[in-house]
Amino acid sequence: MSIKVGYIDIHLPDEAIPIDSFLKSMNFENSYDPYNISNNKFISSIYKIDSNMEEHIFEQLVKKYLLYKRLDGSEIDYLIYTQSDSNENKLSVAYSIQYKLNLSNAQVFSINQGCSGTLIAMKVASALINNRAARRVLILTSCFTQKDSERFIGSTILSDGIGLMEVTGSDGVFQMLDFMGKTNGGINEDNFHLNGNPARIVNIGAKLIKAILKKNSMTLDNIACIVPLNTSKEAWSLYCDALKCTLDKVFLDNIIDGGHMGAVDTIRNLKSIIDKNNLKEGEYIILFGMGFGTSWDVMLLQSV
Amino acid sequence: MSIKVGYIDIHLPDEAIPIDSFLKSMNFENSYDPYNISNNKFISSIYKIDSNMEEHIFEQLVKKYLLYKRLDGSEIDYLIYTQSDSNENKLSVAYSIQYKLNLSNAQVFSINQGCSGTLIAMKVASALINNRAARRVLILTSCFTQKDSERFIGSTILSDGIGLMEVTGSDGVFQMLDFMGKTNGGINEDNFHLNGNPARIVNIGAKLIKAILKKNSMTLDNIACIVPLNTSKEAWSLYCDALKCTLDKVFLDNIIDGGHMGAVDTIRNLKSIIDKNNLKEGEYIILFGMGFGTSWDVMLLQSV
Repeated sequence: MSIKVGYIDIHLPDEAIPIDSFLKSMNFENSYDPYNISNNKFISSIYKIDSNMEEHIFEQLVKKYLLYKRLDGSEIDYLIYTQSDSNENKLSVAYSIQYKLNLSNAQVFSINQGCSGTLIAMKVASALINNRAARRVLILTSCFTQKDSERFIGSTILSDGIGLMEVTGSDGVFQMLDFMGKTNGGINEDNFHLNGNPARIVNIGAKLIKAILKKNSMTLDNIACIVPLNTSKEAWSLYCDALKCTLDKVFLDNIIDGGHMGAVDTIRNLKSIIDKNNLKEGEYIILFGMGFGTSWDVMLLQSV
Repeated sequence: MSIKVGYIDIHLPDEAIPIDSFLKSMNFENSYDPYNISNNKFISSIYKIDSNMEEHIFEQLVKKYLLYKRLDGSEIDYLIYTQSDSNENKLSVAYSIQYKLNLSNAQVFSINQGCSGTLIAMKVASALINNRAARRVLILTSCFTQKDSERFIGSTILSDGIGLMEVTGSDGVFQMLDFMGKTNGGINEDNFHLNGNPARIVNIGAKLIKAILKKNSMTLDNIACIVPLNTSKEAWSLYCDALKCTLDKVFLDNIIDGGHMGAVDTIRNLKSIIDKNNLKEGEYIILFGMGFGTSWDVMLLQSV
């Protein structure tokens, strides 16, 4: 069966916070060079959302989706909630949306895999649809950081974000052709900066991209672009070295405005690609995600 | 493809805590009758596990499983971690096990649906296997309660527990024949005792059991037993009224020793049924789970 990404939407606040005012508000000590952070990372602004608004924002996104698709909600068979922060379990947010919007046939559960959560949720959704256990699956992905000091992770800065994606057996914007994933539980937040692990992370990710291409008898020449998480241009320079391609092969447009929003990046970037009309019908892209722990996921999509 | 429960194991501490000493340790106020709690619920003991031991215990369970099945670990394609408590995200426990035991091909993610988490993880595992995305999936389910005062939920008492289940396309002990689920986000912990919701909870659950029987052209006469969560005999009296059957149709053996261990109950009860040799080859059972929010899940299994 042909499984598609049927609909994508994203919520960001109207006003971004300029990186300079954000960094000033942090009152860094002298030993820390805040401007180097922003210069190195090419992030000019970040987004903050009041986490108490999460349920309300998802409700508005789902309402808009139902209206656009002319659905009454009973057509949704699963609602998968994907938290990419590591805060307390907030599954009740998804339950509440199911009830308020009367998604009468939607079974609710959550899937987490850190910042690659949307990708693994897409894989699970496609398996459920392929298995005829579902016709439409909604993925609700959010990313919140409670303390500003925790927004600095590894090589990037975290914004808050909220996104929605429909995976369906019927009409859509991207056909999901193949998926591959890899987990290495030995690489995590605690040892990211030790032992040359950033290089290993890039190496494993690049291998996975090569593997999905080989499995589908393709090369990077067949791919219009790689759609990454919005972590940093620096990291993608390393990936491009490993893949023997140039940076313009990678969709990096969203890093400057917002940086990394966990697993919401996947949804945000696909939405931007559609909005910017970047792809012709039939063109292929590779969706790439990485969640600390660490898991890497790649999906081969075709624009339809 | 025929999908099976391939292996089941459970960890409980060697010593249970008698319910009387547990209740005494709680220092209830006079307005509260602790003995009525234990009498009504037929729970004579509970189990507590130091949550810092979780990773070590899972490691031992997985090692024992690999040895029993003569696997080197590379045969596991997914490791699904199912937390049935609502504490902080502990996905790192599963990542660590993947790394320590060199489950080199296992992709790790977590699935949560409260106390019905094992059932939804079984459904997802079967979809992945049916989809040829996996051959073997390990489900690691745990349930911990941090404060003793939080062990009293609704009509039951919570113990800690840890369980492991293999879902596989090859040999197993139960064949997974069908699954149905229902979510009603309007029934949750906050309003469980209001508006007659316990009756609605039983009503929805009983309807789902009837629905899966009807879908498979069966009646309860075709079912050797219903395997519930170990919440309370009282609740199952109500279910039996709704289903027009007697309590002996329900596997309630484990309530007395430990009560409810969240989504671990599903694994514990299947293990007890195997250990007690309760089923003949070819006999059918219905696995029932309910996770606050609320989700109800039923699965039709056949002993093989």
